[in-house]
Amino acid sequence: MRLEIIGLKLPEVTQEIDLLDAIVSAAEKQAGGLRRDDVLVITSKIISKARGYIFSIKELEEKASGRAKRLAKYTRKPVWLVEGILRVSRRIVAAIPLTSIVDVEEFAEKYGAKRENVLELLEKDPCVLVTAMPDGRLATDAGIDSSNVPPGFACYPPLDPDKEARRIALEIRKRTGKDVAVIIVDTEASLTKIGSVDVAIGCSGIDPVDRCFGELDLYGKPKYGGIDLVADEIACAAALLIKQAAQGVPVVVIRGLKYKKTYSVGVKDIYIPRKTLRKGILKTFLATAKLKLLRLI
Amino acid sequence: MRLEIIGLKLPEVTQEIDLLDAIVSAAEKQAGGLRRDDVLVITSKIISKARGYIFSIKELEEKASGRAKRLAKYTRKPVWLVEGILRVSRRIVAAIPLTSIVDVEEFAEKYGAKRENVLELLEKDPCVLVTAMPDGRLATDAGIDSSNVPPGFACYPPLDPDKEARRIALEIRKRTGKDVAVIIVDTEASLTKIGSVDVAIGCSGIDPVDRCFGELDLYGKPKYGGIDLVADEIACAAALLIKQAAQGVPVVVIRGLKYKKTYSVGVKDIYIPRKTLRKGILKTFLATAKLKLLRLI
Repeated sequence: MRLEIIGLKLPEVTQEIDLLDAIVSAAEKQAGGLRRDDVLVITSKIISKARGYIFSIKELEEKASGRAKRLAKYTRKPVWLVEGILRVSRRIVAAIPLTSIVDVEEFAEKYGAKRENVLELLEKDPCVLVTAMPDGRLATDAGIDSSNVPPGFACYPPLDPDKEARRIALEIRKRTGKDVAVIIVDTEASLTKIGSVDVAIGCSGIDPVDRCFGELDLYGKPKYGGIDLVADEIACAAALLIKQAAQGVPVVVIRGLKYKKTYSVGVKDIYIPRKTLRKGILKTFLATAKLKLLRLI
Repeated sequence: MRLEIIGLKLPEVTQEIDLLDAIVSAAEKQAGGLRRDDVLVITSKIISKARGYIFSIKELEEKASGRAKRLAKYTRKPVWLVEGILRVSRRIVAAIPLTSIVDVEEFAEKYGAKRENVLELLEKDPCVLVTAMPDGRLATDAGIDSSNVPPGFACYPPLDPDKEARRIALEIRKRTGKDVAVIIVDTEASLTKIGSVDVAIGCSGIDPVDRCFGELDLYGKPKYGGIDLVADEIACAAALLIKQAAQGVPVVVIRGLKYKKTYSVGVKDIYIPRKTLRKGILKTFLATAKLKLLRLI
């Protein structure tokens, strides 16, 4: 039982190049060509760069709304970033004042590539905004990111990544005759560990989740669980080669994986709906408080 | 740039077999032997089975404390499970009344292998307890799990998984002369999507996290981010072959990965400390409330 994970190096992606051509030709040279049932993992970053989902930082600064300016003042975030967040997100749901929660010096020491860089980055942007995106996903700072984008610019993620994945899968089939599954990934903060993992934000041709709650185990008993978030697991597997800085590997081919094909489900269908999330937080708070009052926990 | 992910099928693991022997010999037959710098991913489940981290459900039921009985009554969870949770966790931090949050019929329809199984499982155990484990990790139901364990028994996870990983790495080196990294994984619920992913709960010989915040990007700019949770990404990559039910693949070899070796850091060192988590929730709540009052979000 084997999988192969193949990272594809791509030339610098801009709006001027044909991204699909670049991927197909990189796959030819570096992975012996795309094969049927390969899973093609693509970072949202290069889709943004290829499709022009890019802000000029100067333009955002100059055209910032009054609300963006006030919000920037209160959060101490750069005005351009707040303006960008307001433009692409559906709404802001929370503000995490990072530097007043973690010990910045200790953080820089432990997790920084270079201490001064960390201190400067956190000084310039000390608060993370949690945003609801048009597809229902929660993202930090609306997924706006200026790394690996030319100086003076920042990119925002595709706003309908499932659709973007579908478009790419169709285009690949047209150009190569091969049916591949496509997963679009982005990097998001973890809530339990200090750091981030890659997550699936869009997919096509693959069911992003195993629907096996209650499946029989080795002993024939129905098991509690079995809802594997396959697309997220694939995103993480690919992240092992993508890395985040200057490696230049924005596309990964996963070969040999058995997966359930479907064209009718996207990543957006498996987010916990915000209504459920709110209800969940409230009911969990109440149930927990009750058990505490009863001195049972 | 390539990784290979090789799933190892193992015979049924019990306390009577030598787990390390079984792994080494499976690797010889199925992966051409372990090689230097392979990453060996092992499910916490088979460690529990091999080491006897196993409860008799009947014994738990019979010896349940008064507190366990009352807690079981209020949460409608099985008494044996609550007794087990109280025995292995450091404390219970929250109760999630699952069936009063999700629409059970819809859930069974969408995510169930078989509708009746789902309804029965949720009827028997409608509330998930979030527990703090001795190593600082948060787990659901203290990681106690009866699937893939003989009927009448349930297993609990290793309570010091970093130490367990170290022991295995040393033992592998002794038996094969090879230095491999070891990661112990368990399945945990996602907080944003409906489903679960595998996470690293213990490691040895590998830094579980990239410490690259502020590293330079393609354009030489220091980037915001770069703290990849490598061990968790590896856990997810392995999960693509491990699956959860009757596949019988509890060990995975990741071959070809470049990683930072260390013996001084474990997974327990990268959990967000509970104090920070509490402070984070409080400060986030206050900052968010302030922005809402100001009508900025």
